[in-house]
Amino acid sequence: MAISEFDLIKDYFNKSGLIPTTEQSARIPLGIGDDCAVIDLPPERLLAVSMDTLVADVHFPAKADSGLIAQRALAVNLSDLAAMGAEPLAFTLALSLPKVEEAWLQGFSLGLEQMIQKYRCPLIGGDITKGPLSITIQVHGLLERGKILRRDSARPGELVYVSGELGAAGLAVSLLGNGMSLDKPDTKELHSAYYQPVPRVILGQSIAGIASAAIDISDGLMADLGHIAEQSGVGIVLNAKAIPISKAVKNFMGAMGDKSKGLNLALTAGDEYELALTVAEDQQEELQQKAAEINVPLTLIGRVVKGSRVKCLDSDGREIDIKNSGYRHFS
Amino acid sequence: MAISEFDLIKDYFNKSGLIPTTEQSARIPLGIGDDCAVIDLPPERLLAVSMDTLVADVHFPAKADSGLIAQRALAVNLSDLAAMGAEPLAFTLALSLPKVEEAWLQGFSLGLEQMIQKYRCPLIGGDITKGPLSITIQVHGLLERGKILRRDSARPGELVYVSGELGAAGLAVSLLGNGMSLDKPDTKELHSAYYQPVPRVILGQSIAGIASAAIDISDGLMADLGHIAEQSGVGIVLNAKAIPISKAVKNFMGAMGDKSKGLNLALTAGDEYELALTVAEDQQEELQQKAAEINVPLTLIGRVVKGSRVKCLDSDGREIDIKNSGYRHFS
Repeated sequence: MAISEFDLIKDYFNKSGLIPTTEQSARIPLGIGDDCAVIDLPPERLLAVSMDTLVADVHFPAKADSGLIAQRALAVNLSDLAAMGAEPLAFTLALSLPKVEEAWLQGFSLGLEQMIQKYRCPLIGGDITKGPLSITIQVHGLLERGKILRRDSARPGELVYVSGELGAAGLAVSLLGNGMSLDKPDTKELHSAYYQPVPRVILGQSIAGIASAAIDISDGLMADLGHIAEQSGVGIVLNAKAIPISKAVKNFMGAMGDKSKGLNLALTAGDEYELALTVAEDQQEELQQKAAEINVPLTLIGRVVKGSRVKCLDSDGREIDIKNSGYRHFS
Repeated sequence: MAISEFDLIKDYFNKSGLIPTTEQSARIPLGIGDDCAVIDLPPERLLAVSMDTLVADVHFPAKADSGLIAQRALAVNLSDLAAMGAEPLAFTLALSLPKVEEAWLQGFSLGLEQMIQKYRCPLIGGDITKGPLSITIQVHGLLERGKILRRDSARPGELVYVSGELGAAGLAVSLLGNGMSLDKPDTKELHSAYYQPVPRVILGQSIAGIASAAIDISDGLMADLGHIAEQSGVGIVLNAKAIPISKAVKNFMGAMGDKSKGLNLALTAGDEYELALTVAEDQQEELQQKAAEINVPLTLIGRVVKGSRVKCLDSDGREIDIKNSGYRHFS
């Protein structure tokens, strides 16, 4: 049966649960269906925008569950809003599909809906085209003037923190890359770390105006702190013992006889979507209090110094040799 | 040589001529290089956003000149801003590339730069990924409150106008689809109609607040007026004799012995990027004056009526049988 782009939009995307609620419509006077969507920004707010593409068999297995693909696609974009301290407002979606499969689209639409409801970030427009499976999302978020978590504002003497635990998503990527499935009982945590990363949206907003700089860990902890170091013109020294390694990774690597039990993975693996941030010493207490209020674990992992490099030292003060410096799309 | 995403961005995209000028930075306090770009909307303006994807060998020949691909990708997006009456502000770009080719990227970057300079619409962020060649652009534009060219606000009794001439881009698509080249001297106009469509950005802004509804012709005149008819709850009757058919099309079709000389093409071909609009009779004079001031030809082609269909009548009042109803991505 021939089906048009317009039918696809109507059946799977332009529907209640995905589009703005009546209340959200005040900020989105025009959503899906016109040449453009229209955003009405509240006074004294800035708009943060970020765009990320996920390509089949590059960023996810083409045969993965479409609901999980949708969740992951929106999560990685929301993570960029989190890293700026922005409140999610709305997103646009460009979906390229090789063919129309009802079950796939149904699952994709449902996966989006769950994220939209959870993060109050409705769909306001986009494009559906025929082509190799690929998803591009642009998220839009609200920022308070003067409370923007940039990358270029870390200063020597400040402390470096990271949220959550690291390594599980990276291990999942590595297993998937070797053609392994994550559907077994002992890889359950790796599966959800990869497909359903939790963007630190509330944390980002809570610490905006307190942290001096922040970034989400999409390229790997060392590489992403490298972006802060480069853009701020500083160095960063990490304490290897303090790096919070995921329990799932410790167990898995331990069983494999790996003595370092995942430190390298935690330092270099991308796709984590935790926040790494810097904070002035006298703001440390307020930072920890904010994180405690929302039950997000924050770990002190290092210090901003004069210089230009990111290094990680062991308990004897020796620099740890890092095996790779994070995900590089074209290396 | 291994090259990272960051190097690609630095070498081809994050550079003067593409990014915001000092003056534009007032509206874009943060561009490429952080987790998000930041837009500072002027008071009393709304933000229009639109996203379009162009996939290689679906929306353009994969081997086409990369500068032309870039120009076309930005033009079709700017056309959506034009159709809302929005002033271009900035755009984001998601580029999927199968491999890194310096000459291709150089040409693409230069093609973007020409459009950016012409339409004063700088690049503020995006994503570069490895994958099948595909370009997704989101444009952002400024709207004046109360001067938005929607699709759902045409009323019976109003007049229907179209800008420019129709059919050349459609004929180009059809020739390209049959594997023909557009590089010969007699297809020069078709080549530029397809690769370098002129988005009616100034026209859109000039008639915002005067026209009652507008749309850009990306799916075909009849199909796009069908969107206005459906969303406004009206019918539209076109006068076949009045439809402005491109001279290049008339010549080409005439040489092929086609008696209708391109009318069907002008009515149904997509990718035209002219504006179709409706206007109340008492605003007609002001509309024509605005178009004349900026030297854009506008042709009166029909009338909005009660009903729900778009039809085109010949000079005897008989309905013309349309051979297809515009581009459908999944038919």
